[in-house]
Amino acid sequence: MTLSLTTLQNIPLIRQNDNLADILLSSLAETKIGLQNDDILILAQKVVSKAEGRIRNLAEVIPSARAVELAEKTQKDARVVELMLQESNEILRTRVGAIIVEHKLGFVCANAGIDHSNVAGLGNEKEEYVLLLPENPDESARRVRDEIRQRTGTNIGVMIIDSHGRAWRNGTVGICIGLSGIPAVLDERGWKDLFGYTLQVTVVGVADELAAAASLMMGQAAEGTPAVHVRGFPYPLGEGSLKELLRPKEQDMFR
Amino acid sequence: MTLSLTTLQNIPLIRQNDNLADILLSSLAETKIGLQNDDILILAQKVVSKAEGRIRNLAEVIPSARAVELAEKTQKDARVVELMLQESNEILRTRVGAIIVEHKLGFVCANAGIDHSNVAGLGNEKEEYVLLLPENPDESARRVRDEIRQRTGTNIGVMIIDSHGRAWRNGTVGICIGLSGIPAVLDERGWKDLFGYTLQVTVVGVADELAAAASLMMGQAAEGTPAVHVRGFPYPLGEGSLKELLRPKEQDMFR
Repeated sequence: MTLSLTTLQNIPLIRQNDNLADILLSSLAETKIGLQNDDILILAQKVVSKAEGRIRNLAEVIPSARAVELAEKTQKDARVVELMLQESNEILRTRVGAIIVEHKLGFVCANAGIDHSNVAGLGNEKEEYVLLLPENPDESARRVRDEIRQRTGTNIGVMIIDSHGRAWRNGTVGICIGLSGIPAVLDERGWKDLFGYTLQVTVVGVADELAAAASLMMGQAAEGTPAVHVRGFPYPLGEGSLKELLRPKEQDMFR
Repeated sequence: MTLSLTTLQNIPLIRQNDNLADILLSSLAETKIGLQNDDILILAQKVVSKAEGRIRNLAEVIPSARAVELAEKTQKDARVVELMLQESNEILRTRVGAIIVEHKLGFVCANAGIDHSNVAGLGNEKEEYVLLLPENPDESARRVRDEIRQRTGTNIGVMIIDSHGRAWRNGTVGICIGLSGIPAVLDERGWKDLFGYTLQVTVVGVADELAAAASLMMGQAAEGTPAVHVRGFPYPLGEGSLKELLRPKEQDMFR
């Protein structure tokens, strides 16, 4: 069994209202990949956010008193902190350079996933922009998937990923923030292992494992490869949602 | 750019003192993969632990008073808890069914990585065995890598992975517990993004991203595919170590 992940070529810089399905289909053709049923396309959060107009001009953000205070404490831009507060349910930890929040989407992440890089070049070069996460990434994935199915007749999965820091370990890893047509977790509780010993508690975060693989291929910086084609995902495709990947707060020992 | 991960076929059940390099080379031949420079082989912790004799017969473990107390609190087998204590630097959290520790190897994980499945069948069927993690997984990886280089002349990377639960998110994901010839993290601080904005804090956990991908292909249970061949890792191979992946305790906000 082979899993293959291929970076899509010639994805242009994405702007608001760009049609991502269009762009992906063109790029697949240029990469010489013929889409098949059960393939998966993985998109970086940035391109989805840009297409959905989730860009904010910092000149238009007025920080609240709370944002000013938190910005001072963490040595961050108060306008960016204001957006972080607006995008979050709760602040979990702060220190210089980092604000760890529960995002409105339900996951724990640094700086509410607000991204300050690769969003210049969209207007006056002196202005500063940031990108917010998509408002409903499962739905964003579903829209791309549906349009590709309508146009090509192929049933694929679509996933949107971001890079998150983690408790305990150095280095960001790709994680899933939205998906359609792919299982989020697989519950292997009750399966028998090789000797018939029943596995007790194995729930596998397959979507996050795939997200990490795709993130590895996207890289971070100048290469600019925000879309990856996947063939050979080793489980049947099926419906998943971001929510399945999120541990309920009351079950979390590390909040 | 394509990354491909292929499960190796016909890996036998591993027993103490088995030569893993031998077994991998046979399996590569059966899988019809000709090893090339810069390929990576990824091994599940279980097979390394078995080959290294890290199996323990629970009948021979005498739990300490502390283990008995902790076992009662968590509803676990006191003999297994005794081994967890021996394998750990520190207990971080406990609740029914879970003991979260800092393992002697330095990482945070559940149950000190002690594995109760797939270790039967090694003696009297009525006896119960568990597997401890390898004592020095970087060194275990290095040995396999060196022997393969000596025998084939190819310079590859070798990684040993396990499945860990995480803070905040449901589902285990594959993570690296030892490696040789592969970078552990890539420090992208100071790289320029597409618009020349300098990325501030991006350290990418590339080894863990690759570990997650391999884990996805290994599955967990009856399939029994504990080794994966990787081609197309998108960064130059180079020396890494487990230690680079571990955040120093004093820098961790979630201990």
